[in-house]
Amino acid sequence: MLIIPVIISILSLFFVGYLISWIQKCDMGTPKMQEIYKAIKNGADAFLKRQYKTIGLMTLFLAVVLFVVYALNDKWLIGMQTSLSFLFGALCSSLAGLVGMWISVRSNIRTASAAQTSFSKALTIALRGGAVSGITIVAMSLLGISGLYFIYSAFGYLPNEIPSLLVGFSFGASLVALFAQLGGGIYTKAADVGADLVGKIEKNIPEDDPRNPAVIADLVGDNVGDCAGRGADLFESTAAENVGAMILGVVLFPYFGINGILFPLVIRGFGLLCTIVGIMVAKAKETDDPLKALNKGYFVTCGLAAIAFYFVTMQMLNNILFFYAGLVGLAASIVFVFVTQYYTEHKYRPVQEIVKASATGHATNIIAGFAVGLECTAATVITIAAALLASFKLGVMTDLPSGGLYATAVATMGMLSTAGYVLAMDTFGPITDNAGGIVEMSGASEEVRLITDKLDSAGNTTKALTKGYAMGSAALAAFLLFSAYFEEAKLTVVNFARVEVFVAGLLGAMLVFFFSSLAIRAVGKAAGKIVEEVRRQFKADSGLMAGTSTPDYAKCVDITTKSALQEMIWPGLLAVVLPIVVGVLFKAEAEAGFIMTATIVGVLLATVFNNSGGAWDNAKKFIEMGNFGGKGGDAHKASVTGDTVGDPFKDTAGPSLHVLVKLLGTLSLALVALFI
Amino acid sequence: MLIIPVIISILSLFFVGYLISWIQKCDMGTPKMQEIYKAIKNGADAFLKRQYKTIGLMTLFLAVVLFVVYALNDKWLIGMQTSLSFLFGALCSSLAGLVGMWISVRSNIRTASAAQTSFSKALTIALRGGAVSGITIVAMSLLGISGLYFIYSAFGYLPNEIPSLLVGFSFGASLVALFAQLGGGIYTKAADVGADLVGKIEKNIPEDDPRNPAVIADLVGDNVGDCAGRGADLFESTAAENVGAMILGVVLFPYFGINGILFPLVIRGFGLLCTIVGIMVAKAKETDDPLKALNKGYFVTCGLAAIAFYFVTMQMLNNILFFYAGLVGLAASIVFVFVTQYYTEHKYRPVQEIVKASATGHATNIIAGFAVGLECTAATVITIAAALLASFKLGVMTDLPSGGLYATAVATMGMLSTAGYVLAMDTFGPITDNAGGIVEMSGASEEVRLITDKLDSAGNTTKALTKGYAMGSAALAAFLLFSAYFEEAKLTVVNFARVEVFVAGLLGAMLVFFFSSLAIRAVGKAAGKIVEEVRRQFKADSGLMAGTSTPDYAKCVDITTKSALQEMIWPGLLAVVLPIVVGVLFKAEAEAGFIMTATIVGVLLATVFNNSGGAWDNAKKFIEMGNFGGKGGDAHKASVTGDTVGDPFKDTAGPSLHVLVKLLGTLSLALVALFI
Repeated sequence: MLIIPVIISILSLFFVGYLISWIQKCDMGTPKMQEIYKAIKNGADAFLKRQYKTIGLMTLFLAVVLFVVYALNDKWLIGMQTSLSFLFGALCSSLAGLVGMWISVRSNIRTASAAQTSFSKALTIALRGGAVSGITIVAMSLLGISGLYFIYSAFGYLPNEIPSLLVGFSFGASLVALFAQLGGGIYTKAADVGADLVGKIEKNIPEDDPRNPAVIADLVGDNVGDCAGRGADLFESTAAENVGAMILGVVLFPYFGINGILFPLVIRGFGLLCTIVGIMVAKAKETDDPLKALNKGYFVTCGLAAIAFYFVTMQMLNNILFFYAGLVGLAASIVFVFVTQYYTEHKYRPVQEIVKASATGHATNIIAGFAVGLECTAATVITIAAALLASFKLGVMTDLPSGGLYATAVATMGMLSTAGYVLAMDTFGPITDNAGGIVEMSGASEEVRLITDKLDSAGNTTKALTKGYAMGSAALAAFLLFSAYFEEAKLTVVNFARVEVFVAGLLGAMLVFFFSSLAIRAVGKAAGKIVEEVRRQFKADSGLMAGTSTPDYAKCVDITTKSALQEMIWPGLLAVVLPIVVGVLFKAEAEAGFIMTATIVGVLLATVFNNSGGAWDNAKKFIEMGNFGGKGGDAHKASVTGDTVGDPFKDTAGPSLHVLVKLLGTLSLALVALFI
Repeated sequence: MLIIPVIISILSLFFVGYLISWIQKCDMGTPKMQEIYKAIKNGADAFLKRQYKTIGLMTLFLAVVLFVVYALNDKWLIGMQTSLSFLFGALCSSLAGLVGMWISVRSNIRTASAAQTSFSKALTIALRGGAVSGITIVAMSLLGISGLYFIYSAFGYLPNEIPSLLVGFSFGASLVALFAQLGGGIYTKAADVGADLVGKIEKNIPEDDPRNPAVIADLVGDNVGDCAGRGADLFESTAAENVGAMILGVVLFPYFGINGILFPLVIRGFGLLCTIVGIMVAKAKETDDPLKALNKGYFVTCGLAAIAFYFVTMQMLNNILFFYAGLVGLAASIVFVFVTQYYTEHKYRPVQEIVKASATGHATNIIAGFAVGLECTAATVITIAAALLASFKLGVMTDLPSGGLYATAVATMGMLSTAGYVLAMDTFGPITDNAGGIVEMSGASEEVRLITDKLDSAGNTTKALTKGYAMGSAALAAFLLFSAYFEEAKLTVVNFARVEVFVAGLLGAMLVFFFSSLAIRAVGKAAGKIVEEVRRQFKADSGLMAGTSTPDYAKCVDITTKSALQEMIWPGLLAVVLPIVVGVLFKAEAEAGFIMTATIVGVLLATVFNNSGGAWDNAKKFIEMGNFGGKGGDAHKASVTGDTVGDPFKDTAGPSLHVLVKLLGTLSLALVALFI
């Protein structure tokens, strides 16, 4: 059975190879564009090199700590295995991030170049660039887990023993993802906010204007945050979810045998095939709405995934009720997409409320946006609750012991079967954003800009949608990981009436708030340094404003790199150290309480951050279309404030919380031996 | 034993009578001041009349529903008892609100008048006005509970049966408090924001300028929100905490007999005596810092409370460990005061960060303030966790069964023994705020304004401190109520690995976020209507700006009243209906999960709202002292944005969450029969 996901993954990587060679053959545009491309590439490479050095050192250190702690408890073998799986997971996650950035840097410039001649071609390049990232991530996660499975089998472990041995892998992946997403998220928003504060507000020059010394740092940010960071993040998600579901499969080992354990891998393999078809059918005519093409591909993927789900479920689990549970998950993912759309698109009531509030000033804009963010938690929670209850009920109806729990795992798999496509849409966002920046900076004509603006606006929507999807799947997966932790820790209850558990719960909720505070402040601090540098450059050389001399882009890139790396350390360490301390001091049951509240609060607060940020962004865009006085009016100024506040919310704190929630799940699983 | 709190309460009410006659004898100032006083009084009376009519109808309706639901389950007697206690609690809570407002309206004008001649006299009037409110509330709560206790005893109930019968009382009090605080909170901030948006920003006239048509509504708001609303809120707190502790006392009935049950009432009675002494010693010389005088009274109260605690504990519980637990609570309350001070006073790093961020614009001011709010949850949670763990540990050392739990109750009593004084300091805030408004509007001289400004600034600090104290005590009390719920529902665990409990937990967290969203949006909507009316008046009559004609204050008051009452309905109903629905659908264990996460999230989010709001406010004040360009500069404009955003945070959403958390505790206790 394991051969199926392996073969599909390898085939998918061949397909990725085809996509890459196709993209590489595309035109690289004017010399001016190539010059900008090189600057972006160098900046991104330099950041990633330094970032991964820091992350690598921390990972190594933690691997040694892991081993030593286990060894001190006389668990040499499990310590060795956990440390090695941990390192392997960390390596794969880093690779996923690197691939994400490698391809996005190369697709940006080609999308920009294609936009000079054809909207349709530009869209295809950007989506295929995204697909390289999305498919590679899912395939690598499947290969990594299958590979470890093979190795452990070869060492004589039984199929029902192996899943618990894989948690080190997903913990390693989570750890790298946390720092990659934090560092990248701080980088991208510090550069963005820093560039805007001086450029747009003080100097009154447009976004992506080549006179702004921070503009290259801003473009680099899209690549290191939205591509590399998100790549590691989503690699970790797929790994954690697979391992969690496999552990629950062990519970049903007496009934399904190895099928229950390998089901998650097989179904995701088929999901990859569906994604490939979806990517190939997503094409647009010259006059089409880009979202129409992207949606077409998405719904094709969903439809095929549903069919594949039916056959795989009937073949491996032979119970139609599990198929229904999978459909529940798939349906929930579609609902998440629509909920996010409702809360972040300008057509609907929430963004319109923010727009209207902008007319009465900065403060009312902020109040309205924040209220929208708080409000949208209701729809999110109701969807998660409905999906969990419905799939659990279906599982209970199978009359298998723990059938309900396993059915929630199947629902999670249903939701995640389209992950590859969703990842492709996600990476589509920063690629088109960068392409727009390159076009703007290279001084291309108005029509070309119109094309990239159209793509960029679609990219903003897909980015928001992915966040909704990612958050929803994080919630389901968290329940999965939590249940798996229960199995591993041999817990039967988490009793919140015990004072240690209650206190741990308080601390878990606190971690989420405090971590968010650190992440947001990090952006503020790093942005402050950039503002100083940009102001310095404008002051030192009056030729900058006139456009007669070139700013020192590299200096800004360097400052952003340094401060983003510095600022990512504390929140990252806090997220790793606090749960360990709580677990060691208060033991397994309190740790469960800690993770539980941290997860619930994390999911909700991330939803607030993501959706309020998206809504503020689109409220500004709606005003910029010429409503309520259009660009430069008072309402516009207020909406820019909201957009700027939303930046660290939606691109630093929100995505980092998403990783944090999953990290807590994998960390507790990997270190459960310490908490008993 | 019960006779002690009853006698002390009656004596305290005599003392209150003395304070009232002392205040009534003070001078009522110039005819101009009296004219303003009348406008405020009429507006406040009109609002309260309509508000309590709405609340009364809802209370009656709910009492009938309560009775019918119990009757349908064939529990006629308990249904009747619960409904009647519920109505009695609601009545007392309403009275507490009315007393708070009655005295504050009368103290405002006399404080304003006294400020013309003596700073010391003005301070004394304001503090004694606050003390009338604080002492009455605590005394009424003791009398109400003792009275019910007498009645139930007369009907032949045993001492260990009575505490559970009292929960209807605290539920009724909570319900009224929720609507009073919500309605009042929406009123006060809608009027404040509405007045500022047109007055300060569009028309560039100072705060409390008589030319602003919304200025009387703003002053009315301080009375109905900060005095009437907070009065009902804190009445409910004291009632809920007493009843919760008494229920835990039942657990120790075999050891302490009736002493364990009556201990909370007796210790709070002595707390009242300490408060009276504290109030009498808090006096200032003409040149003193007002905070010095207030602090002197506070520390005297704390010291006396510690001594009283020793004697009462040794007498009634005869175990020094419980005395230590009480000291832990008292110490925690002092720590909360310092933490709030650190996060909201301009001397310290957090506010300074916001001040600096204001120099780079509106957006960075908001980001910095929000980050400060998120950050301060750490200190709050650590204090709560330490207090709970330490007192629990002390209780475990007594070797009594459930000794740990009872010790946390004793710690809560320790924290609350100074409640009367803290309430007096809290009400001191709106009284001085209003006095400042009256002085400004009556065109008094610069020196008089300096005095009221000094008092107002101290009032802002005490208001912030009380919120920190209230939130900390809410967290401890929530654990108390939660433990009492456990006893009543005969639960032994809350297992978050059950899907219904997990889902209920998600819904509990959601309630807090969604409720906050509704509360914040309510302020926005109501403020929008006021802005329209104020603009209309300025447009219709150009004599307004010139100061030659008088604005139609009553119209603004009327609009604010209507919209605040309208907007309080939905969030209020949500807070009552959702926990009932969850409990009925998913039963007692899931309800516990719901309350647990809602409590944790509610405490943290309220802390974020209260402290970020306070920090923004003081950042603005610091800039207005002439720093960073002072009033009218760009940094000041940015800081005004933060202050305006903070208004609904700290005065509507935060305090309402505080009531919500307690309401959930009392609601679950009162309706536990439905969830089993």
